[in-house]
Amino acid sequence: MNSEILTGTTQSVSTIPLSSEELRNMHAYWRAANYISVGQIYLMDNPLLQEPLELSHIKPRLLGHWGTTPGLNFIYVHMNRIIKSQDLNAIYIAGPGHGGPGLVANTYLEGTYSEVYPNISQNREGLKKLFKQFSFPGGIPSHVAPETPGSIHEGGELGYAVSHAFGAVFDNPDLLVCCVVGDGEAETGPMATSWHSNKFLNPSTDGAVLPILHLNGYKIANPAILARLTHDELENLFIGYGYTPYFVEGSDPEAMHQLMAATMDKAIGVIKSIQARARTTGVVERPRWPMIILRSPKGWTGPKEVDGLKTEGSWRSHQVPLSEMATKPGHVKLLEEWMKSYQPETLFDATGRLLPEIAELAPLGERRMGANPHANGGVLLKQLLMPDFREYAIDVPKPGQVLGEATRVMGKMLRDVMKLNRDKRNFRVMGPDETASNRLGALFEVTDRTWMAEHFDDDDHLAPDGRVMEILSEHTCQGWLEGYLLTGRHGLFSCYEAFIHIVDSMFNQHAKWLKVTKEIPWRRSVASLNYLLTSHVWRQDHNGFSHQDPGFIDHVVNKKGDVIKVYLPPDANTLLFVTDKILRSRNLVNVIVAGKQPDLQWLDMDSAIKHCTTGIGIWEWAGNDADGEPDVVMGCAGDVPTLETLAAVALLRQYLPDLKIRVVNVVDLMTLQPKEEHPDGLPGKDFDILFTTDKPIIFAYHGYPWLIHRLTYRRTNHNNLHVRGYKEEGTTTTPFDMAVRNDLDRFHLVSDVIDRVPKLGYRAAHLKQIMRDKLIEHKAYITTYGEDMPEIRNWKWPE
Amino acid sequence: MNSEILTGTTQSVSTIPLSSEELRNMHAYWRAANYISVGQIYLMDNPLLQEPLELSHIKPRLLGHWGTTPGLNFIYVHMNRIIKSQDLNAIYIAGPGHGGPGLVANTYLEGTYSEVYPNISQNREGLKKLFKQFSFPGGIPSHVAPETPGSIHEGGELGYAVSHAFGAVFDNPDLLVCCVVGDGEAETGPMATSWHSNKFLNPSTDGAVLPILHLNGYKIANPAILARLTHDELENLFIGYGYTPYFVEGSDPEAMHQLMAATMDKAIGVIKSIQARARTTGVVERPRWPMIILRSPKGWTGPKEVDGLKTEGSWRSHQVPLSEMATKPGHVKLLEEWMKSYQPETLFDATGRLLPEIAELAPLGERRMGANPHANGGVLLKQLLMPDFREYAIDVPKPGQVLGEATRVMGKMLRDVMKLNRDKRNFRVMGPDETASNRLGALFEVTDRTWMAEHFDDDDHLAPDGRVMEILSEHTCQGWLEGYLLTGRHGLFSCYEAFIHIVDSMFNQHAKWLKVTKEIPWRRSVASLNYLLTSHVWRQDHNGFSHQDPGFIDHVVNKKGDVIKVYLPPDANTLLFVTDKILRSRNLVNVIVAGKQPDLQWLDMDSAIKHCTTGIGIWEWAGNDADGEPDVVMGCAGDVPTLETLAAVALLRQYLPDLKIRVVNVVDLMTLQPKEEHPDGLPGKDFDILFTTDKPIIFAYHGYPWLIHRLTYRRTNHNNLHVRGYKEEGTTTTPFDMAVRNDLDRFHLVSDVIDRVPKLGYRAAHLKQIMRDKLIEHKAYITTYGEDMPEIRNWKWPE
Repeated sequence: MNSEILTGTTQSVSTIPLSSEELRNMHAYWRAANYISVGQIYLMDNPLLQEPLELSHIKPRLLGHWGTTPGLNFIYVHMNRIIKSQDLNAIYIAGPGHGGPGLVANTYLEGTYSEVYPNISQNREGLKKLFKQFSFPGGIPSHVAPETPGSIHEGGELGYAVSHAFGAVFDNPDLLVCCVVGDGEAETGPMATSWHSNKFLNPSTDGAVLPILHLNGYKIANPAILARLTHDELENLFIGYGYTPYFVEGSDPEAMHQLMAATMDKAIGVIKSIQARARTTGVVERPRWPMIILRSPKGWTGPKEVDGLKTEGSWRSHQVPLSEMATKPGHVKLLEEWMKSYQPETLFDATGRLLPEIAELAPLGERRMGANPHANGGVLLKQLLMPDFREYAIDVPKPGQVLGEATRVMGKMLRDVMKLNRDKRNFRVMGPDETASNRLGALFEVTDRTWMAEHFDDDDHLAPDGRVMEILSEHTCQGWLEGYLLTGRHGLFSCYEAFIHIVDSMFNQHAKWLKVTKEIPWRRSVASLNYLLTSHVWRQDHNGFSHQDPGFIDHVVNKKGDVIKVYLPPDANTLLFVTDKILRSRNLVNVIVAGKQPDLQWLDMDSAIKHCTTGIGIWEWAGNDADGEPDVVMGCAGDVPTLETLAAVALLRQYLPDLKIRVVNVVDLMTLQPKEEHPDGLPGKDFDILFTTDKPIIFAYHGYPWLIHRLTYRRTNHNNLHVRGYKEEGTTTTPFDMAVRNDLDRFHLVSDVIDRVPKLGYRAAHLKQIMRDKLIEHKAYITTYGEDMPEIRNWKWPE
Repeated sequence: MNSEILTGTTQSVSTIPLSSEELRNMHAYWRAANYISVGQIYLMDNPLLQEPLELSHIKPRLLGHWGTTPGLNFIYVHMNRIIKSQDLNAIYIAGPGHGGPGLVANTYLEGTYSEVYPNISQNREGLKKLFKQFSFPGGIPSHVAPETPGSIHEGGELGYAVSHAFGAVFDNPDLLVCCVVGDGEAETGPMATSWHSNKFLNPSTDGAVLPILHLNGYKIANPAILARLTHDELENLFIGYGYTPYFVEGSDPEAMHQLMAATMDKAIGVIKSIQARARTTGVVERPRWPMIILRSPKGWTGPKEVDGLKTEGSWRSHQVPLSEMATKPGHVKLLEEWMKSYQPETLFDATGRLLPEIAELAPLGERRMGANPHANGGVLLKQLLMPDFREYAIDVPKPGQVLGEATRVMGKMLRDVMKLNRDKRNFRVMGPDETASNRLGALFEVTDRTWMAEHFDDDDHLAPDGRVMEILSEHTCQGWLEGYLLTGRHGLFSCYEAFIHIVDSMFNQHAKWLKVTKEIPWRRSVASLNYLLTSHVWRQDHNGFSHQDPGFIDHVVNKKGDVIKVYLPPDANTLLFVTDKILRSRNLVNVIVAGKQPDLQWLDMDSAIKHCTTGIGIWEWAGNDADGEPDVVMGCAGDVPTLETLAAVALLRQYLPDLKIRVVNVVDLMTLQPKEEHPDGLPGKDFDILFTTDKPIIFAYHGYPWLIHRLTYRRTNHNNLHVRGYKEEGTTTTPFDMAVRNDLDRFHLVSDVIDRVPKLGYRAAHLKQIMRDKLIEHKAYITTYGEDMPEIRNWKWPE
């Protein structure tokens, strides 16, 4: 075996791999990319500087981030060389996504850009449009974005480059992701732990990530921490993370080109030998993967000094190093000198076309990183083979008699999804060490947990080719899954409900990505990002207050209606239907909230299908309003609220048999919104038929109650809507006491009905007193015995 | 100098520091802590096992986390020893907060627990109550929580132990925080980057953190990654992070006690010599701080095997290693054997009191970690010295004529807060590298950015004693600030609005902490957690869609009304008032959203004070309804919505002079809620006076529009409320175009009024056409010239 692969020693490489012609052409290509990057930031006319530069050629608002861009361009050019020389299948993730001009420049130079945007042609006119559109109204955004060919990563919010990169290469054995990490981004928490993704990468069946930590020294105004570690510390850190770091440091372009080319050759060589060894010998060990630490000046090749202040190699290069063009004519001159320093006349012919000897450095066709289909994953997406979800149905002869654990049932279905698609290797389940705890354990009948690190005998279902990925980092789970989906595969993220807030911000960015991709014709649909939130607020009674937060739903519904859906299946069969639906869907974020505890089952499979198909409906068997308008509507959404609502209904029907009650259960929460706000929204007339236009509605909801008001405030009968939900009361207590503390329990719901339905008479007043007594009895019982009263624990729907 | 301090070599220590008597007593103390921990998880009676254990003594619901607890107890006992022997001032942060029973056990053993909870006495009866209350309805939560004496850290959500610890020791030169990090928690992103906090710790003026990474090998079901690194990798990793790791590994109690004691002596010795050197020589260099890596079995001293399966040293010890007591009588026997293995009869006398020779191991008085006042920071809290905010007022002779940058003005006030409290060293400003970008740069006139790493000449305001803390990790900023506040100091976190979502989950936990502490009599009030959110959604026009998200407000208002406030000051003088208010407040989370761009100023200081004192009010100078009821109410909250509203009002007054308009501006968003929902809520009658009971309201809001509906749905005139706000449309464009894309601009607002006020006649129809034309003109202008029309850019309120 190659001992180099496993050694922890840092490598630095000193051969001179580039011929002088290669060097000249690569440098020219880099100059062209830098020129086009600067042009995008500054110019709206005179793109080839064929006339003297004037203020009128310069954009009035100068926006963009120059500092990181020359480094991104440098790496891109070197990737081009090695892709071409070794026929690599590679994509590029730009962690410093603010360097948008660089990626646009490179995809333009390689021709991809003009293919997807034919109006941006390979000539002077195209170049002018390319320059002007950047950060310009009606043009393209300033960062790497869905609009950028070859990207699966919006680098506006920092921290996720490495987890996206690993997500992309799982089950893509031939793919290489060149993943550039900025030294600013490297300070974020999600990035700091995502380096450990190498403990989950199987060299036999997965591709490889080549991380390039780009130290350019500064963030907006501060030095970057990693740029100010001692060399030894930096080396130790990445050895500690399990990599062999190769250093490429300097500022002289010629020396840097040679060093970078040699280091790239070396790193790719190590990756190939790691893969070859695993794939030929079948020995699967965790290797020490290579990474590159590139230290180059911030704003490299930019103005050395502006107004007497150091600019290249300083934080002053972060955004636009030269500004105030209108008031400082010297700056226009300086800009012209800067752009001319790239010698555009030696790069482009008079029509604005890149000279052929330079252009040929780029790879061809789908080998171009901007054209690689993995970066437009919908192109590669294959339908998931799905079992018939009805086969997993729980037998529910009558509502509310048998117990079932919804997520355990779902787990069996997921097991078979996993099994059916095993050969296609395009489905994974992610979660922070909770797959078994969330009762999806059936998955382990057909697969294991991905694990490339050390094994002990007593470990539970760990294997290098496991397809359940668990790391105690919601950020990494989310990042992996996003990378996996955006490259055309399928997956599910199961998480404790409260802690999915950890990735609120990542969800935001993914939802924004989806919203924008829908408007881009050449972007193809990808599989939806699916969340199963379980161990939810009502059954974190044992872990207590810190584990009780149902607010992710509120967060999700702030995003565009056509990219998000929220489901609250009340039992196992409805959960099966919804699981089937989300796994078949495209370009959405689907949130399912479902319990894992043994709970009463309500609907047989036929009823579940009927109910979930509309997503909302009357449970006729539960109410007694069949022959006309009800006196009250009892709405419910979520498993625990449904249970408490039905228990309340049973009490009401027992004590007040004349009261006409309608029960409406909501599975698809978005049905509550008007049709104009969400595609699933119920038309106004249909809503009014369900909820009446004038009767009191007592609605028991899984989450924060005001969300129901926010969804329904335009509905006719909104003024009569009274919602119970989680109002931020909780601790370690009994399950039923959680409901009581938040006034969501059956006894409170009965009282709510009595308070709101007029003229119920003395029997209602008496029932209300009974409810008060029950609550007192409950409190006394649990503080004595430590569990809920038997009548609560053993309650069933009256047959 | 002591070369050992700066060397990167791992240390392991082999002396035998404990006498046999010390060893015996420490081991006894540990046994007592373990016994009391197990007792809490299992027993509700028979606490000293003076009778044979029966099912009836055991709780019906077994809840708790045993796995981490013996390790936490082991560390606590060793901290006790060294606190006592060296008179240390120390607190304990239990990252694995699930090990609640351990912290409760230790604070009970040292006597603190009974002092704050006198009903939990130091005898059999007290012990019985202590056992029963744990995770029992009406008792205490299962995790370390605000209820736990000595804690500033709820360990339910993982990842923040180290940032909390560093926050606690900044400006507390005599304080030591023993910070235990679980190997599960170590996988989280926030934890993985927070190790770099050592680049911000000044050995002269700050205290020290002793991190103890506790490798017990397993999480819920998986191995922990850090526990499966090679020894070399682990060592490299922490050397890379800048520490000297000392390893304590094993399972034999006697050997482990000696090793731990020797290692603790060593680590504390190194800390003291680092501090002494910095404090006597004045040479401030970044030292290599010590840390301990403790590798011990999960569920150490627990059952070796249960039902034939390995338990001690396995993931099976994670929660309750023995359960199903009712159905498996053998388990009751096993539990009794387990508990008796601690030999309770050698620890407690017959009355249940800890034997004096064991008890005397604990420190006394405030040296006990449970009684240290730093862990109940309100006790130490000193009022911040505040300048008169009126001194920073912008001169506003007339509304809407002069420009001002609100946050730049605020920066001057913060500068003087910093200056006034410099000697008290109890105020810091945190942010992810955005203090200058957010225009709070005046701070750098009196202080610098904290920076202990390498310096270069061209760096901008870096110093070891800087009091502005910048790291590109919102998680670390938040964690530091929480630790700083909870130990009795003051601070502010300034952040780009969109990216504050990164800490959604941390905010949740802090708000929950505050909610609970308010209910605990012995917990004293701490300074509020203050956010300044700037670079907000409307002025991230240059960074684009990824940087546009105003949803943090929605997230915040889900928490209890009495712990959160949200302010949207429309200009500089109102921002000054609000800044003064939040810095004086206690036990709140305050969110301010304010712009940093040059914007029109509306209120002189007297008007600002009057307006902000109520938090909502009519701007009489802007409307024309002085002599009666208006035809329309124009509501606004936020700087950009206020500007657009006033521009719309000016247009309406110009074109439709007969239309009676009222302008209501909202600074304190919570005034919109009913009084019952939030203490700042406006009483219904007052609300109706402002907004009328029947006139159309056009409300321009900073964030997602539906939040205003959710806050006001109970208000009389809610049916006539029409809200404009951010509806998730954005890209890189002009500032005004951001408003246009979301229908929040003046032209849309004018049209909204025309659509909703009846009988405006032909002139209104004509005006609406003008508005349509203006929108077309706007689009054409910006796509040609790249900036907003001069009439937009130069608009002022008509004098």
